[in-house]
Amino acid sequence: MGKIIFNGDLKSRSEVKVDIEDRGYQFGDGVYEVIRVYNGELFTEDMHLNRLIDSAKLIQMKVPFTIAEIKNRMKELIAENQLKDGIVYMQLTRGVSARTHSFPTAEVEPAFVAYTKEMPYTGKMKPGVNAVTTDDIRWLRCNIKSLNLLGNIMAKQQAVEAGCDEAIQHRDGTVTEGSSSNVSIVVDGQLKTHPATNLILNGITRQVMLKLCADHGIPYVEEAFTVEDMMAADEVLYTSTSVEVTPIINIDGQSIAAGEPGPITQRLQKLFSEEIEKQCGSVK
Amino acid sequence: MGKIIFNGDLKSRSEVKVDIEDRGYQFGDGVYEVIRVYNGELFTEDMHLNRLIDSAKLIQMKVPFTIAEIKNRMKELIAENQLKDGIVYMQLTRGVSARTHSFPTAEVEPAFVAYTKEMPYTGKMKPGVNAVTTDDIRWLRCNIKSLNLLGNIMAKQQAVEAGCDEAIQHRDGTVTEGSSSNVSIVVDGQLKTHPATNLILNGITRQVMLKLCADHGIPYVEEAFTVEDMMAADEVLYTSTSVEVTPIINIDGQSIAAGEPGPITQRLQKLFSEEIEKQCGSVK
Repeated sequence: MGKIIFNGDLKSRSEVKVDIEDRGYQFGDGVYEVIRVYNGELFTEDMHLNRLIDSAKLIQMKVPFTIAEIKNRMKELIAENQLKDGIVYMQLTRGVSARTHSFPTAEVEPAFVAYTKEMPYTGKMKPGVNAVTTDDIRWLRCNIKSLNLLGNIMAKQQAVEAGCDEAIQHRDGTVTEGSSSNVSIVVDGQLKTHPATNLILNGITRQVMLKLCADHGIPYVEEAFTVEDMMAADEVLYTSTSVEVTPIINIDGQSIAAGEPGPITQRLQKLFSEEIEKQCGSVK
Repeated sequence: MGKIIFNGDLKSRSEVKVDIEDRGYQFGDGVYEVIRVYNGELFTEDMHLNRLIDSAKLIQMKVPFTIAEIKNRMKELIAENQLKDGIVYMQLTRGVSARTHSFPTAEVEPAFVAYTKEMPYTGKMKPGVNAVTTDDIRWLRCNIKSLNLLGNIMAKQQAVEAGCDEAIQHRDGTVTEGSSSNVSIVVDGQLKTHPATNLILNGITRQVMLKLCADHGIPYVEEAFTVEDMMAADEVLYTSTSVEVTPIINIDGQSIAAGEPGPITQRLQKLFSEEIEKQCGSVK
């Protein structure tokens, strides 16, 4: 993990102390981002940092830094830790205050933590994975990237216990998203994914993917689909900062189409890795 | 705050350090309880500690202590801090582990924190308060007393900003509960409160109140009611460890009935304070 950033300062991890009354610890009262680093370069960092600001706004939390300041800090951190391929994790909580549900009435400084972690680039043509479906039990503000993640945790744990990589959540049969990813299907050459409402987190990889569809003439629509639609689709794929664009070839033990990565998914994988190379240089 | 208990040991607060990768800090992955102390005695402690165990089970988290061990620790803490009237706050998180949504695969010890806070007993006949109504945006496992409290926070903050004491949440017009309390109404002499489903936290004060109704011949039913029913009710009251039994006399700027505490609420306030005295001795 190397050095970390705590409230604006570069520190050794052993120096850092989180207070028991940090509102992040008692309420999950905070927001976060995970940004991929390729070749020592932050990928789509502006999109992530803008979303961090948006998430904070949605829970009426002030951000004590400008985007430019956070970027500079992240660059320092990456250099200090000599990170080549990996992620930066950052979170911002409402700060330390005697426990009461409502916001602190005194002026309290938000607490900021950021660290890096190595994560090798696994290649542009990642093979297909298996998934399970599960009820979406989460709150109605999934558009906020908050630290209230118990619903996501419990979904992901179900996937792990079934020997799968991801849990695909649905509300009464309508697919929302994965436990830490967005899910799309391909039907008759058209990509379909849940619209960016309060029921999903509008993933940065999702946004990049849709831009790639638009730029390269791949038909797409932001429209909800059912579990039934998904099981009968030609292709299913999921996207996130960690998994990039990855095919899902089996759900609840049933193959999707022929049970192998489909042509649109593979095209998007290639386009996505080209986008990475455009922003960060050659990745492999 | 005096001494606190951290992972089983009595410590000075300045010695305590929460790790940045404590799953409580990154996911809100934990559960908690608040227990009232009157006259140096824990009130309804078994009910609270049983619920802590239940909450932990519902998120598949082990509790590294027996109820008897926790009780002994709490008694030590109360004695050490010479607490007469106040609360014990305790929380248990899944422990420290490199960040990944699914549960840690290695054996990880849950992290336990408990501290006391003074809270004077404000008398059995607490006056009526004002409330606002708000959409219930929370997840579908409100029966778990978890650290994922952002929905509750945002509701409570709305109440505070409106100059009120509590926010009464509803799903599409059906009242669930307060942001940190249960809500009941009285219509034609019968008390009505939302059943203990996944949509509410089954408050200990709520349970004590229903037992008092049963024991003293006050008719009650556990049945959901609408915002409309509530606005037209003879009495509205809310219950929690902190507020005990308290009348709500005005909601969204509109008086409930005559705008003063009603007879059933006042009877329950008296019965509740008698229950406190029975368990903890004279409170005033």
